[in-house]
Amino acid sequence: MTNKPLILVTNDDGIDAPGITILKHIMLTIGDVVVVAPDGAKSGMGHAITVSKILKYKKLPSTISNLEEYSISGTPADCVKFALHELLDKTPDLCVSGINHGSNTSINVVYSGTMGAAIEAGINNIPAIGFSYYDFSWQADFSHIKPFVYKIAASVLTNGLPKDCVLNVNFPSEKTQPKGIKICRQSKGKWLERFDKRSNPHGQNYYWLSGHFENQDEGNDTDEWAVKNNFVAITPVLFDLTAHKHIDKLKKYKF
Amino acid sequence: MTNKPLILVTNDDGIDAPGITILKHIMLTIGDVVVVAPDGAKSGMGHAITVSKILKYKKLPSTISNLEEYSISGTPADCVKFALHELLDKTPDLCVSGINHGSNTSINVVYSGTMGAAIEAGINNIPAIGFSYYDFSWQADFSHIKPFVYKIAASVLTNGLPKDCVLNVNFPSEKTQPKGIKICRQSKGKWLERFDKRSNPHGQNYYWLSGHFENQDEGNDTDEWAVKNNFVAITPVLFDLTAHKHIDKLKKYKF
Repeated sequence: MTNKPLILVTNDDGIDAPGITILKHIMLTIGDVVVVAPDGAKSGMGHAITVSKILKYKKLPSTISNLEEYSISGTPADCVKFALHELLDKTPDLCVSGINHGSNTSINVVYSGTMGAAIEAGINNIPAIGFSYYDFSWQADFSHIKPFVYKIAASVLTNGLPKDCVLNVNFPSEKTQPKGIKICRQSKGKWLERFDKRSNPHGQNYYWLSGHFENQDEGNDTDEWAVKNNFVAITPVLFDLTAHKHIDKLKKYKF
Repeated sequence: MTNKPLILVTNDDGIDAPGITILKHIMLTIGDVVVVAPDGAKSGMGHAITVSKILKYKKLPSTISNLEEYSISGTPADCVKFALHELLDKTPDLCVSGINHGSNTSINVVYSGTMGAAIEAGINNIPAIGFSYYDFSWQADFSHIKPFVYKIAASVLTNGLPKDCVLNVNFPSEKTQPKGIKICRQSKGKWLERFDKRSNPHGQNYYWLSGHFENQDEGNDTDEWAVKNNFVAITPVLFDLTAHKHIDKLKKYKF
């Protein structure tokens, strides 16, 4: 390790995902990098933490002087907690999570392990960014989005972030250069669920969660609008979940 | 089932927890009840959903005419999705989650499976309430808080809730009658983590997530202040996580 900025890298697709490998190499051009990521896929884990099971970790071999890598048997939020309180001897200057294979626009932010990790860093006052790419393929081409990842991370390292917020960055699915960056709000939308029923060889039923996302927001200031129009969407995300605007209304309820 | 209001009951401590049994019996005095809850403890699951594993369910025997009960092999949020899209043939009029054995004030809302389930119902436009009790004991006495559970649920059934918000209700730990209800904001606070290191008989290390919560907010309008002063805390919780107040600031960043 050197005296460059210390960057914590994590994700929810697991330490062997192409997205985190790309993110790690971009961060190595900026600072010292410690990767602390789940030992397998943890998509859809939201902000889950491991309280009823044990955690284990492995240190991976590294031949790069400013890189350390650890895999953890837990969730993305566990990775950030374990990094901050067990593995690192100083506080990171930045935490980046991703690059997720799949979008985390709209309501997906609440299910996203990528964003769960970024929010966990934010709760600990570390500037944090979740990066997600609107392409689920393990073979996706990241080359045209790499310069955006670099400049967003470098800018946050230099300027910090407003208090008590982290960034949710989503890249469009188009394979051409994005038209630019839009600062967005979270689009209103939800999943129309379907449970895919199967039977095992013993005749017992089981289900796979399936379905499709429905955007319910026609605004042109949302993250969904931005990625659908080939812009990089940056949404500031908070972790004070209070619906402040409804407090006065509820005070008039007869409970 | 009758033609009374349909109430979906879930939790994160599992279908056999005392808290959900008490909640179920209170709701049976108000309406028709369908319990859809995890088949075991799912504390700390936040808004996690099961995307990489299969789901199974069991219908439990019931001798009460306006009660159905199902256990699910997934998370609290899975339970709500599975209830809405697979088990129920009409939309519930209310979803209640809990009564959680342990508090979900302050930042605990982001880790809470109890609140993950309530928020999932809210996303689907169902009035929803998470109930949590500042007492972890399986033997806790709920008798003095039951009237509050009843009247908060009945009031939400009658009046509905403001759009795009759910309620996070926390009961104080004191064993005396609470002084009343306070409408609150989420207190600022975080966990000071500690990872408790152990060794298995093969000499391999493993860790338990541990630590203690630190309230960092001196306001007397917070959920933490309310429960510490023997009030029932009701915090309206949103799922548009956009930090709206920071959008203009970020538009001036040089990304």
